[in-house]
Amino acid sequence: MKAAILTIGDEIMIGQIVDTNSTWIAAWLDLNGWKVTRKLGVRDEIPEIIKGIDLCYEDADLVITTGGLGPTKDDLTKDALCQYYNSKLIWHEETWSRVKEILKRINREPSDLHKVQCYLPENARIIPNDQGSAPGMMFEESNKILVSVPGVPHEMKHLLSEKIIQLLPKGEAVEHRFVRTAGEGETVLAEMIEDIESALPSDIKLAYLPSFSQVTLRLTSYGDGKKERMDVLQKQIVDRLGDLVYSTSLDISLSKSIGDILRKRNETIGTGESCTGGYLSHLITAVSGSSDYFIGSIVPYAYRMKTSELDVPQEMLWEFGAVSEEVVRSMAEGVRKNLDVTWALSTSGIAGPTGGTPQKPVGTIWIACSGPNGTKARLLKLTRDRVSNIEYASIAALVLLRKMLLEEGEG
Amino acid sequence: MKAAILTIGDEIMIGQIVDTNSTWIAAWLDLNGWKVTRKLGVRDEIPEIIKGIDLCYEDADLVITTGGLGPTKDDLTKDALCQYYNSKLIWHEETWSRVKEILKRINREPSDLHKVQCYLPENARIIPNDQGSAPGMMFEESNKILVSVPGVPHEMKHLLSEKIIQLLPKGEAVEHRFVRTAGEGETVLAEMIEDIESALPSDIKLAYLPSFSQVTLRLTSYGDGKKERMDVLQKQIVDRLGDLVYSTSLDISLSKSIGDILRKRNETIGTGESCTGGYLSHLITAVSGSSDYFIGSIVPYAYRMKTSELDVPQEMLWEFGAVSEEVVRSMAEGVRKNLDVTWALSTSGIAGPTGGTPQKPVGTIWIACSGPNGTKARLLKLTRDRVSNIEYASIAALVLLRKMLLEEGEG
Repeated sequence: MKAAILTIGDEIMIGQIVDTNSTWIAAWLDLNGWKVTRKLGVRDEIPEIIKGIDLCYEDADLVITTGGLGPTKDDLTKDALCQYYNSKLIWHEETWSRVKEILKRINREPSDLHKVQCYLPENARIIPNDQGSAPGMMFEESNKILVSVPGVPHEMKHLLSEKIIQLLPKGEAVEHRFVRTAGEGETVLAEMIEDIESALPSDIKLAYLPSFSQVTLRLTSYGDGKKERMDVLQKQIVDRLGDLVYSTSLDISLSKSIGDILRKRNETIGTGESCTGGYLSHLITAVSGSSDYFIGSIVPYAYRMKTSELDVPQEMLWEFGAVSEEVVRSMAEGVRKNLDVTWALSTSGIAGPTGGTPQKPVGTIWIACSGPNGTKARLLKLTRDRVSNIEYASIAALVLLRKMLLEEGEG
Repeated sequence: MKAAILTIGDEIMIGQIVDTNSTWIAAWLDLNGWKVTRKLGVRDEIPEIIKGIDLCYEDADLVITTGGLGPTKDDLTKDALCQYYNSKLIWHEETWSRVKEILKRINREPSDLHKVQCYLPENARIIPNDQGSAPGMMFEESNKILVSVPGVPHEMKHLLSEKIIQLLPKGEAVEHRFVRTAGEGETVLAEMIEDIESALPSDIKLAYLPSFSQVTLRLTSYGDGKKERMDVLQKQIVDRLGDLVYSTSLDISLSKSIGDILRKRNETIGTGESCTGGYLSHLITAVSGSSDYFIGSIVPYAYRMKTSELDVPQEMLWEFGAVSEEVVRSMAEGVRKNLDVTWALSTSGIAGPTGGTPQKPVGTIWIACSGPNGTKARLLKLTRDRVSNIEYASIAALVLLRKMLLEEGEG
């Protein structure tokens, strides 16, 4: 079953924004057994959109389009779809009720432009959007399906995964198995499982998906009757990689896997973040239910807050500087004591692009973890941009915590 | 002058990686006066690549392809190009010398796979790659140009911007102007500038690019001699939208624009975040130089931290609950006093997906801002997923702060 993705919008074509929508949709289609053969981006121009649909249909049974569904003049997808499917826009009362309801929740009055969004192609199946004003649309013609969803990522994901998936024909059987790891790079992992990888049957593919301090391994097979073999292979890899593996499900992130351990042990955690500025705390609290174990965080950006909130001695700050093993340890211990938590993480460093010195260049970041049996610190020397350095250091702190949690668990 | 981008690689088509290459190339082409009419992604399969070139050429004078130039079996771009241009691979001694030289620099021995990379299409113009083993290639046929570069981002950028740009015909002049706004949606903005938009000359386009609580307006024109008219139009829109406008540059985010105001006034800020869990603080500290005005943040996830760190009275928590106007105000005022800052932001709510009640459903989020002239609170009723709710509430808090900053400035 072949599918194509059509992304509509000038902002994509002038390189103003990165098209993460089509990446998400491609992965989602793949997971549901659809082979994506073509990804096409076109401008907000009716002839281009129409041509784009043609090109996508050429070799696919299903086309997913995103974008161009807003109420303003540059949004032309609906008009293009009407032309393509020889239809016209008609008033859709149900959408109007839903738009009014959404606006009421946020104390807004509906306007004429909101009404524009309620004129929809007569021959489309309308898919109610619970998260925004533009609904999804589905067209069927001679066994080919086109689905149009808004370009706003959370609305697109909501519509596809909650409303549209059940309306599509079932894709080809596809099996994926995941092994999510933290703490080692792709090359080391590949060496650890070299023999397993070499012995893989030709109909099963292994991919390494690296991200900051983490690598997710994905096994993929197409066709029926492969479940058992896939399970065996996954187990082989999990056994070989041991403690590096934190989950075998895409739904369980590193920070969720840590939360699950803490909840089970009835332990708590808090953070003290200087250079990561709240991002570490965000990673922990992005997990639903994190209030079960997360007590809170102090982000002591200014020196004086490191002293007042985390009891870092002023002389220590002067002698070693905020970016030092001494201070990052003291911060972790301060969090552990002042927030009264089982585990405390801390970060202090120079995220860049300015603020570096010859001794402590940009990317010098200390992380520490303090627990029942003591405190450990690690020095990172990063070379990325500011936000990537912040993200990397936050993940590295979680990796350090996970390692200590496992060690204590064994002791 | 029209251009198209062809991205080659299975990893793009299964959604394994985000295609940032084509974004960079699109922006680079746009900046150099090439109108990108089509962006196409295809799999590592020879017929698909050939079909892809056809589709790109259909409406473009220039095609840039990336990917599929490595030495392994899944890299098929060179073979496809030979078929397309009716050519054959021949040994390229100059590339071999360059590959040996690069390998020598990193103390590696050349292997058979490196030799594979020195067989190149006979009729291509070879563009030496100083940063990797696969060179760029350029094909010219009946006034149309195809450029093939490796998918490794830094090699691709190096080849295009240092070696290839001077070989291409000069593109058309293009002008962009941006107006970035916060606090109102697309619909309201469109109404506010309806007359300006209707009166736009047909050769100037206006686009609305919405994100959480923000909309960026983009004016675009092609051709020479439009700078002045673009400036006039931009100013008209800026004047009309007034305080909603926070910047006219893509490099200046909402949080940077706020930081610039604070720095100029020599004022400081701190945050107290419950439901946003550090994300607000992350937005502020994602800006380089934020330590000039950002003192720090308290993330009091547990009740006890709201009391111990921010002096929220325990009775208040019991009487009204953590998610209440009273508590969010008390949090902001606690931050302002305890962190000794000019401005304090606070958030408290139910990000979801669990934890809602009939009185306070998921998405009920209070935000507050406390400044020299008092405290203001706002209730949000959000309907997104957990992380989107967190992001939206954080931006909304910044919007509230900006509004109060401007009001105080006027007083």
